[in-house]
Parts: sequence; structure tokens; C-alpha cells
Amino acid sequence: MDEAHVEKKHPRAESIKIREAITRSVEANVVALAGLIAHGRGEAFDYILGEKTTSPGMKAITASAAYIILAEHPILSVNGNVAALCAEEFVELSKISNSKLEVNLFHRTLEREIAIENLLKKAGADKVLGVGEAASSRIQEIFSDRRRVDPEGIFKADVVFVPLEDGDRTQGLVKMGKKVLTVDLNPLSRTAQWANVTIVDNIIRAMPLLISEVKRLKTVKPLELKAIIKNYDNKKVLSEAMIIMEQRLHSLAEKGVYLDIDY
Amino acid sequence: MDEAHVEKKHPRAESIKIREAITRSVEANVVALAGLIAHGRGEAFDYILGEKTTSPGMKAITASAAYIILAEHPILSVNGNVAALCAEEFVELSKISNSKLEVNLFHRTLEREIAIENLLKKAGADKVLGVGEAASSRIQEIFSDRRRVDPEGIFKADVVFVPLEDGDRTQGLVKMGKKVLTVDLNPLSRTAQWANVTIVDNIIRAMPLLISEVKRLKTVKPLELKAIIKNYDNKKVLSEAMIIMEQRLHSLAEKGVYLDIDY
Repeated sequence: MDEAHVEKKHPRAESIKIREAITRSVEANVVALAGLIAHGRGEAFDYILGEKTTSPGMKAITASAAYIILAEHPILSVNGNVAALCAEEFVELSKISNSKLEVNLFHRTLEREIAIENLLKKAGADKVLGVGEAASSRIQEIFSDRRRVDPEGIFKADVVFVPLEDGDRTQGLVKMGKKVLTVDLNPLSRTAQWANVTIVDNIIRAMPLLISEVKRLKTVKPLELKAIIKNYDNKKVLSEAMIIMEQRLHSLAEKGVYLDIDY
Repeated sequence: MDEAHVEKKHPRAESIKIREAITRSVEANVVALAGLIAHGRGEAFDYILGEKTTSPGMKAITASAAYIILAEHPILSVNGNVAALCAEEFVELSKISNSKLEVNLFHRTLEREIAIENLLKKAGADKVLGVGEAASSRIQEIFSDRRRVDPEGIFKADVVFVPLEDGDRTQGLVKMGKKVLTVDLNPLSRTAQWANVTIVDNIIRAMPLLISEVKRLKTVKPLELKAIIKNYDNKKVLSEAMIIMEQRLHSLAEKGVYLDIDY
């Protein structure tokens, strides 16, 4: 589908442009069909959130930056949707934070793993973990192909940044004792609820902010970073995000939304 | 993807089963890739709605039944997602209400039109409008291929049932003077807001209820049906649906949802 299809005046132009990019990534075998449905769920929650980074979102971004900087062995997990939307940002974050990149798919096929590896390398990555036979370790308590992770990556990581992740696997990683940071527009999802830090935001908006926060906090003393983590309360942050959604739904309901937009 | 992949105890088993059915329909060329994203948006709104037919949903189903029975020339519009999820129900509704079926796609390709026609015929349809050259009339004010409709179908219809429709086209149909009935899980969408009757419900739950209501109301006097329509207020019904969503988001936020589910 061609971008020219989107009329600029369309009230949802930005959202449609992203939608078209992710659809093209299916054709390039980077995104699985189930990834498109997941993207749609995100679109709906983002719409209710107000399509902007909120204050609880920003708190979670700051806490994530602190965790990544303090980590001994931080890993950035990349699935198809993440690669399609933010390959460059993941490579940049990996470089500025000395984190490794790992391809970590819900629907594993070697072809898709290689397509994502290539996308990351094209965006400047030196090394990409988790491709093919490299994903030979297992997440505990997961009994399908979905348990596979790289022994040099997620398996031995202390901090894992796994945006747009499946609930079972997030839970598995937390139970393995890892600190799990995620991005999930649905504050009620199991991933959102199980993670140590949940950034309730669109990954496209969150990544540049996370990069800025890592750059800013790298110059700060470890004690201050530890204080950021100590003061961070994910349950409270999730609750604040839900309240924002609830209030926005309330105000949209009151004014009837779209019909007074000029298009 | 095989249905066996869904563990029965998964907290979202029903939703995942439907998700897999619609994914298979992409492989059968019935559903467009953009249709998967739209399905995901619906999943999110259905989750917030509570995944059941609500009282405003039922009011809209009753009003839709009254409109369809009183219509001179009612048309049931079928797109890829509708065909994938409810082909049998559309054929049954068409038969009990003397409505015609029309294939009406956002992303038209002859191959997909024929795949949907075949699906409907396999489900028992005698005739299917809107396939190939038959879609030679135009919805006003739409300036792309998306304007095409059948002169024997939607173009001359007085009542059109167009579930899961695009906002521009819903608006176009309303401006042409047609009574537009729709199913849309997002009460804030332009389709939901422009239609004369909006059933805010999952089409899988709504269709059997709509069929029952048409059967029940067929035995009722036209004057009573006209009273149902006269007393129906779509703005009020949409507002009630939004209030249900808002309250549910509030109660989910309060109890923190998933973490106390036993799975």
C-alpha cells in the first residue's frame, strides 16, 4: 500500500501512516499476521490514552533508563513489531547503553529471525543475538517453542527491555528473577501488570524519550539512579495511566468527539 | 496457525480462537491485512466493553431489525472481516428479511471479491451483488476506488446494514439519504457517530441476536415497528455504551484485573 493513499486532511492521518508501515513489514516477513492484530489493539488503547506521552508514561521511561544504566548485562528484546517501528532507535539505545540486541519472537521462523536481524544490521547493529540455533536456552515454565532465548542474551541478563511482549513470557522472565521493563499501551495486560516497569505509551513516542533519558542519566551518580528505582512504584504508575484513560473516555463521551472535527 | 495452539485455560482463549480464524482468512484471501489491524482495535474496545452484549447494544439491535423489516430495498453489506466471522449469519439474515447481499470492500481486488462471493455461496447464498464489473455505481463525495457500489444494491437501497465500515463511506451513504445501520465496537468512530443505528457490540455476538429480533418483529404490525424507530435515539445509545466502557475501565483499574485471575 502506498503512502499517497493517506489524505493529509484525514483525521487519523498519523495513525494510518504507521498502520501502512507495519502492513508493509508483513510483506517483508518482519511482522507476523498476529502482530497486525496486536498493533490494532494498541491503536485503540492509544486513542483512548490521547495519543501522547503522559506523566506516568514519563516516570516509567525515567525508571527504565535508570535500570538499563545500572544493569550488569542489559538486553533489548526485538520482535517483529518493534523492528518494523523502531529498528534505528533500538540500535541507538543499544550503543549508548552497552546493551545487546536479541531477536525474541512469539511466532518463531528462521526466515523472520533473519529478516529482523538484517533490518537491525541495516540500521547499524554490529551483533544480533537470538537468531536460529543461537536461541538454545529456555524461559522456565513455558512449554512451547515460545520459551527459546539466547544463553548469551536474555537467559543470563539481569535487566531485560521487552516491549510489546506476550503475558506468559513476561511472567516467565519475572519468575526467573530478571528485572523486566516493557512498553504496553494496555495497562491491564498481563505483561503490563507483571513487569517491573511498564511504559504505557506508543513505542514510537517512547523510544526517543528513553534514548534522551539514558543520555541524561548516564552522567548521574549510581546512588541517584538507585533512588529513582527505589522510589518507582509500577502499580501506582499503572493506576495513573488507567485514570487518564478513564477520564479521557469520559470527556470524549461528553463532547461526542469526531462530529465537531473539521474535515 | 492451528487451534490446538490455544490452551483451554488461557484467560483469553475465546478471543484467541476468533483471532486465529480471522488470521486464516487472510491466507484464504478473504481478509485484507488492514482488516487484521481493524480486528485488533475491535478486540481492545470489546475488552473494555466487557465482551458481552449490553443494554444499549440490544436497543440498537431491535431498532436495526425494525429498519430492515420496514425497508423497501434493504441491503446487507459484506466485507472481508464480516465474511470471515459471520458468513452463515448474513445468508440467514438475508433470507428471513428478503435483503440482498453485496460485497463491499475498502481494499477492492477482484480476487478478494470472488473469494467472499464463494464463501457466501458456500454458506447458502443464491445471489451476491457487488462483484467485479457489477460495482459500477458511486458513493457521492468519495474520490477513490472506495466509492464503488452495485447499482442494483447499495446504490438504490433505502436501508443499508454496513457493519465494520469505514468512516468516509458511512458518511457518504448517510449524505445520499440512506438509513445506515452498523456494528462498531468503537462508539467514537466516525462510522459509529454518523450511522442512524450503531450496534456497539462484537459482530459475532450481535448477529444471532439480530436474526432473532427480525424473526420476532416480522409478526408485529408496521405501526409498532415505526414506533420503535421513532423512539430510538442513536446519540443516547452511543452515550450509554460509552458510560458502560468508562465504568468498566474504572472498576478494572480499581481491582487491578488479571493478577487475581486463576490461570
